[in-house]
Amino acid sequence: MNTAEYIVKRLEEFGINDFFGVPGDYNFNLLYAIESNPNTKWVGCTNELNAGYAADGYARVRGYGAVITTYGVGELSAINAIAGCCAENIPVVHIVGMPSSKNIEKKSLLHHNLQETNYRSFSEIYKSITEKAVILTRDNAKIEIDKALKFLLREKKPIYLAIPSDIAEMEISDRNILYEWVSDKDTLEKVSQKIVQKIQESTLPLILGDVLIKRFDAEIEFKEFVEKSGLPITNFLMGVNLIDMDYEMYLGGYYANFRNPIAEKYMNDTDCLISVGPIYSDVNSFGQKLPYKINNHIAIYGTYTYVEGKKYNNIKMADVLDSITKLIESRHLPINKPNIGYKKRDVENKPLDSDYIYPRLQEFIKENDIVFAETGTVPFGVAAMKLPNSTIIEYQLLWGSIGWATSAVLGACIAKPNARVILITGEGAHQMSAMEVGTMIRYGVKPVIVVINNNGYATERILSRSPKDDFNNILEMNYAKFARVFSGDVWSTKASTDDEFDKSLKVTQIMNKMCYIEAVTEFMDMPSLTKDILSSFKDGNEKNSTKKIKEKKADSYKEIKLMSDKSDIKYETIVHKTFTPKGDAE
Amino acid sequence: MNTAEYIVKRLEEFGINDFFGVPGDYNFNLLYAIESNPNTKWVGCTNELNAGYAADGYARVRGYGAVITTYGVGELSAINAIAGCCAENIPVVHIVGMPSSKNIEKKSLLHHNLQETNYRSFSEIYKSITEKAVILTRDNAKIEIDKALKFLLREKKPIYLAIPSDIAEMEISDRNILYEWVSDKDTLEKVSQKIVQKIQESTLPLILGDVLIKRFDAEIEFKEFVEKSGLPITNFLMGVNLIDMDYEMYLGGYYANFRNPIAEKYMNDTDCLISVGPIYSDVNSFGQKLPYKINNHIAIYGTYTYVEGKKYNNIKMADVLDSITKLIESRHLPINKPNIGYKKRDVENKPLDSDYIYPRLQEFIKENDIVFAETGTVPFGVAAMKLPNSTIIEYQLLWGSIGWATSAVLGACIAKPNARVILITGEGAHQMSAMEVGTMIRYGVKPVIVVINNNGYATERILSRSPKDDFNNILEMNYAKFARVFSGDVWSTKASTDDEFDKSLKVTQIMNKMCYIEAVTEFMDMPSLTKDILSSFKDGNEKNSTKKIKEKKADSYKEIKLMSDKSDIKYETIVHKTFTPKGDAE
Repeated sequence: MNTAEYIVKRLEEFGINDFFGVPGDYNFNLLYAIESNPNTKWVGCTNELNAGYAADGYARVRGYGAVITTYGVGELSAINAIAGCCAENIPVVHIVGMPSSKNIEKKSLLHHNLQETNYRSFSEIYKSITEKAVILTRDNAKIEIDKALKFLLREKKPIYLAIPSDIAEMEISDRNILYEWVSDKDTLEKVSQKIVQKIQESTLPLILGDVLIKRFDAEIEFKEFVEKSGLPITNFLMGVNLIDMDYEMYLGGYYANFRNPIAEKYMNDTDCLISVGPIYSDVNSFGQKLPYKINNHIAIYGTYTYVEGKKYNNIKMADVLDSITKLIESRHLPINKPNIGYKKRDVENKPLDSDYIYPRLQEFIKENDIVFAETGTVPFGVAAMKLPNSTIIEYQLLWGSIGWATSAVLGACIAKPNARVILITGEGAHQMSAMEVGTMIRYGVKPVIVVINNNGYATERILSRSPKDDFNNILEMNYAKFARVFSGDVWSTKASTDDEFDKSLKVTQIMNKMCYIEAVTEFMDMPSLTKDILSSFKDGNEKNSTKKIKEKKADSYKEIKLMSDKSDIKYETIVHKTFTPKGDAE
Repeated sequence: MNTAEYIVKRLEEFGINDFFGVPGDYNFNLLYAIESNPNTKWVGCTNELNAGYAADGYARVRGYGAVITTYGVGELSAINAIAGCCAENIPVVHIVGMPSSKNIEKKSLLHHNLQETNYRSFSEIYKSITEKAVILTRDNAKIEIDKALKFLLREKKPIYLAIPSDIAEMEISDRNILYEWVSDKDTLEKVSQKIVQKIQESTLPLILGDVLIKRFDAEIEFKEFVEKSGLPITNFLMGVNLIDMDYEMYLGGYYANFRNPIAEKYMNDTDCLISVGPIYSDVNSFGQKLPYKINNHIAIYGTYTYVEGKKYNNIKMADVLDSITKLIESRHLPINKPNIGYKKRDVENKPLDSDYIYPRLQEFIKENDIVFAETGTVPFGVAAMKLPNSTIIEYQLLWGSIGWATSAVLGACIAKPNARVILITGEGAHQMSAMEVGTMIRYGVKPVIVVINNNGYATERILSRSPKDDFNNILEMNYAKFARVFSGDVWSTKASTDDEFDKSLKVTQIMNKMCYIEAVTEFMDMPSLTKDILSSFKDGNEKNSTKKIKEKKADSYKEIKLMSDKSDIKYETIVHKTFTPKGDAE
């Protein structure tokens, strides 16, 4: 077994059966290894950035993903996708085929180099956006592959392996190694007791769930903890639907001062926030501070946990949740549940807009669907939906690289061929990687693609000086026709009225092929929640909403109480019965 | 005048009137500056990599180019294009809009970041692929912009300026500074005398021209030197057509042991090689060693010159050429001129192939056309053409990032609206950035686009284990239809026979719009020169041709002579008259 075959075999053990990428003369040995392994397949993309996004989408669905590129030109084209995986804890392996070690040692002037050959330049670049980036050599290949895979498993971040062509061909030991890491028992026990004690002592504990629960495979443990504890629960945007929306203690998503005053008030008033797997950013957390910097917060991450500002390492999120679930006493604080979800307006033959699109999509989305919601105006439209249980929603709200969702859907479809995968994207983002629609058709996958065409970069129109700024206009094209230029089976259409959109979604139900719908709206049409939130961001490039929140959520709990008291949100009566503010707990 | 306006104004002085990129909420101030300057325009692309390539194409034609992206996602998407500019001395300014300094200082958790905010990560990455990469601050903005532009002017390499949104808005002094740098007079004089003495003393001097002559604006000086000196001249692949092909002393291109034994023999036998602006790589120079490591070579670069292994700094290529032209005595060594160019076969109604395509394109290409030949099978097909004087051919053979040419053509068309720009690309490469065809249509530019469809990655088919390897198959699509999905005027067609291709080129002559031709050939069809050269590269990923050349072109001239003597190439009799080998000059 050679090194390339060894890598492919190891990755197969991680559940990776499909490798995305673009072939190049330095990476053939890797492709031969994929071909020769009966359980692995190659998925050729139209470019490396798209291949990187596809591997990201695959990993989101399957757990891990892999992308293969060639030295220099290929690896640098994919770097934005890999940085996104780093930002959002998507464990993707980026394998780069390099010139032979002999050529590297001799500093041969091969193509894909700068004018002076320094074969380490690009792996150095990758160090800052991966958990581990290494060039394999005759001596280190086996050790470094195994080590990198341990990081992949543990940290759920991308790793980078560059393999000179001769090293890929080198014979290597096939000995199995143990990848699994285990929590430190003593720490786990100590932390769990501390957490449970803290929760029990507090008056208004609140659970905040977010997306890293998925990334660190702790969904089941999280749900069990939530249900056993009986505590109220909210989530950041990307953590949507980890708990069923009908669940009696679910407060709805937390969007700062937008649309969900109940969750906002709980967040302001809690004296014990238990955050699980949060990703902080202006868009996902609305300027919330890192909780591990704040007392009275318990922050449970993939491999470590903070309790009252102190960090405990080497404990798995799932283990911590499991352990505290066993220890915790149930306490069902009654809550006022907000109304969640859209009411759909009646179908009419009137111009399509977001007020129809998103409620209609809410109706369309079923249990176990996998929905990729592209960055831009879409996420807040999806955020306001009432979703069926077990529907998976994928956002990329920290990294926010538009174009991601289109290619990621390719990856998701390949990862789970029997699932219905739905892409909801703006047309500007879609254009960035639209060629991968062709790749989807080529590989016979059958997502439902909804391209919402509101005539330009609508998010930017809100944020820039004037909605009419020329630079936010984009290329106009016939999307439905575009989907039909590729060889293969696709059904595509353009919907400009409620009625057409309604019917087109009905058609997708009976089509056993990719369905591609251009949903045409007025200039700058977007969900009203999106409009409100984006508008709040606009203030001379300062993040207004962040500022507001920061002011509100100052360090002292005293200030927070004052803010709450001053707010005109009605405090839900039922909670009042059990809620006694602890005052300045710090 | 604010910082953004200052940058735009300075770049306008460099001849940059058009800025490529994608808008983002961190770069609006830059876009406002472009809008408010009456002499500058924004060209929105479908993604940042394509925008980077477009700026590259613009710079190749106009001298300098600029691309604007947003922080993180945008700048990383463009990095491969900028690395290509670094590799090939294309002076492109990459301007990145960043969050405000306040947010940077506070390490605010804004989108487009990794989970921990280090706002210097990406500028650090850019340091290794640009001449200068800097984040502008309140204190350094003016100084660093001016300094970076000096580097741009002098080194003809990309620079990177990241501008926090508030710094873009900051008022800045508009004082003009002097960009031009001048050669060191004493060094210039000394070096010129040394060079001329060395040439005069040698028996068989040979001039080797390459692409950096264009990059450092020394075309005229080079031509004057070549003509005054009367010395034989050859070129590496990218240095094609710097000297008219009919010129009596032109030996044709140097392709090692392929197809031009005359240039090869001169290269082997010369006792004084004067290389001007070479870029070395397996593809462009066929494994030739860096001449500055070899005695008896004079190597004239953009800002320095090597004579007999000693480097002389701070002298401009154009000045050195100008100076030695004045000093040199004419010496016309008679040569055997090779036959250059294709003979076209008669038009027939038979399946199209490269043997028709390239000769027909040779006939089609006129003086002052600008031809972008994509990496892959195309360059060697173009290399064998007899080109009209003043036709400009652009390759990207060192960096070799496929997808480059399609987007670069957008840049070239915008750079020189009245020129006829021709794109010749394989279909695999074209797919990587094909959406920019739409951008071309959107902006009303009118290139002639020839997409040669030989059913997959043909270069890779030659280089990999088997031509039938699945991974070299690509997405099939209807290219002519694809070009018509965009809103705007285009003429597109598909040509599968000689006759159809001939007619389609004739049609382009009368069309006042973009013309887009898919030229369909047999599986893996390619020019015979391409096939020979690529086949020689294939040897377990070792570069066979490089090896051969390396063996041949060993350090000692004795060995070279032996090789020449053993070769079965006829030594042209006329040269014999004046040629007396100097023996081991070292």
